[in-house]
Amino acid sequence: MIIDCHGHYTTAPKELTSFRDRQLAALTDSTRRPADKDLGISDDQIRESLELNQLKLQRQRGTDLTIFSPRASGMAHQFGDEATAKQWARICNDLIYRSCQLFPENFVAVCQLPQVAGISPKNCIPELERCVKELGFIGLNLNPDPSGGWWKDPPLTDRYWYPIYEKMVELDVPAMVHVSSSCNPAFHATGAHYINGDTTAFMQFIQGDLFKDFPTLKFIIPHGGGAVPYHWGRYRGLAQDMKRPPLEEHVMKNVFFDTCVYHQPGIDLLSKVIPLENILFASEMVGAVKGIDPTTGFNFDDTKRYIDALSISAEAKAQIFEGNVKRVFPRLEAQLKKQKR
Amino acid sequence: MIIDCHGHYTTAPKELTSFRDRQLAALTDSTRRPADKDLGISDDQIRESLELNQLKLQRQRGTDLTIFSPRASGMAHQFGDEATAKQWARICNDLIYRSCQLFPENFVAVCQLPQVAGISPKNCIPELERCVKELGFIGLNLNPDPSGGWWKDPPLTDRYWYPIYEKMVELDVPAMVHVSSSCNPAFHATGAHYINGDTTAFMQFIQGDLFKDFPTLKFIIPHGGGAVPYHWGRYRGLAQDMKRPPLEEHVMKNVFFDTCVYHQPGIDLLSKVIPLENILFASEMVGAVKGIDPTTGFNFDDTKRYIDALSISAEAKAQIFEGNVKRVFPRLEAQLKKQKR
Repeated sequence: MIIDCHGHYTTAPKELTSFRDRQLAALTDSTRRPADKDLGISDDQIRESLELNQLKLQRQRGTDLTIFSPRASGMAHQFGDEATAKQWARICNDLIYRSCQLFPENFVAVCQLPQVAGISPKNCIPELERCVKELGFIGLNLNPDPSGGWWKDPPLTDRYWYPIYEKMVELDVPAMVHVSSSCNPAFHATGAHYINGDTTAFMQFIQGDLFKDFPTLKFIIPHGGGAVPYHWGRYRGLAQDMKRPPLEEHVMKNVFFDTCVYHQPGIDLLSKVIPLENILFASEMVGAVKGIDPTTGFNFDDTKRYIDALSISAEAKAQIFEGNVKRVFPRLEAQLKKQKR
Repeated sequence: MIIDCHGHYTTAPKELTSFRDRQLAALTDSTRRPADKDLGISDDQIRESLELNQLKLQRQRGTDLTIFSPRASGMAHQFGDEATAKQWARICNDLIYRSCQLFPENFVAVCQLPQVAGISPKNCIPELERCVKELGFIGLNLNPDPSGGWWKDPPLTDRYWYPIYEKMVELDVPAMVHVSSSCNPAFHATGAHYINGDTTAFMQFIQGDLFKDFPTLKFIIPHGGGAVPYHWGRYRGLAQDMKRPPLEEHVMKNVFFDTCVYHQPGIDLLSKVIPLENILFASEMVGAVKGIDPTTGFNFDDTKRYIDALSISAEAKAQIFEGNVKRVFPRLEAQLKKQKR
């Protein structure tokens, strides 16, 4: 079984954008505020948007299941207030839930949180509980920078974040550390902010002692771990200079990297320097890079091909494609069984 | 000849820190403001600080020459006003000049600029001209984020930066894009802010059209180009999606990566995906990572060993160690000749 642990609903019907427009317009003119029921997206529309995109690509590329969450850049926690964020998270998560109901063999759900910069992540617990307990979600996306490129919240190791970690541990769900769009003109979203977010989070984990307090807490750092595997010597060296334990003990029991690295040499490096048990298959399709690599003739984000081409055993590949993903998402197997019933 | 294009004076005598303390204290109590002549560092102190560190390591590792600039994290453009920045740049650059005078065969100089967030880089031209024309400096360090982790200045492709680029072209000097310390708690300086700065700058160059306006402008992106080589497929793909020319045409005639990547697999990747002519030897010693890699028994930052171990021809290695560095720093050879006279 081949499980893509990182896919967003980037192809949602345009009514979702219209809904968001009205939500943001309501920040100026409150009479425009839409009610949840105003979304107006039919099951057929969802079916079509997935059939023509994610499902088509699953079939073409030979992957079985996508761990599916709302569009990452669409979370845009920087806009609006807590009420905006809560409604937006609910709307987006409900669309993911419906996608999984419509295609129970192809998608399992991960949620977006109603984060707001400067407001305790405690405010996200009700939505997380709703998603996991009522809707069968198996994980969450945690934005380390809800300010959207201004990095105003404390590091992920700060006690500020502990309420959400306590709930994650209780529910046994991992978080993908995933920023959203950038409103800082210095940072291109998918070309800088995403990758910087990954690198930043990993360094925060090195600096802190979070996993002493939460030994079972699990994070996936997407996009191949940002810059980290390429600079693995730097991170091992920094940890050592800071008198931290070796990374394998200090963070790698709790932190995992996905394979959203869009060329063979990058995946080769990832598999060479990062322990096998820390690598989770992912493509983030349909996502940041949509084109075909002229040097290969295949889509940049068809990452399965890069894993297939690795000089590692079939068992090792199965671990990346399936075993590790199931281990990091403890609720996956039961949920999938439930969906397939 | 082996030229390390990236070394900072991280081992300056402690009087430099005391001077800085008084400078910053003067922001509160102006009577404490030190005069330039108060620095009080003797030639013998400089000699000793270099003999025991950079020169010792040059000899041990078999490198010949370091392109030497003030401590990057010490630039700290975020503190103080324009007068602070100008005096601090002058003091730090003068120390570099004296280092090169004392060891004319071992060091050539690159300067720090008196940047201040939100103030036109035009204010840096007098110091740049002084360094290049009067003191024989061959390049500069340009901080893309003088706010120190808040990223308040426009992208490097913005016309905001053009005055300094015009002067760089006129003087024929390249800039290393190098952030300084971070006062944003989210970003560890050498573990996140440095690498993020590199990644961010490269993506800005992809987004913009800077090199149409300045076809001879040259930038070195340090720390192996941040996350870029590891994500080379992503950057090629993003450029393609954005209808930009291939990276080789669009940015790689003007942008170069150094080899400050502290493990063999990272350097292997760098040399595999990045055109040979874009790679410049560097170690940033004595710098971010000071320890010995327990897996090799050698210093993490002894990057010469990684280049030596590459499966490329001796000519290719010479290009990384010397040829490319001389091409990117057009004033290097004449300056070195002058220093050795």
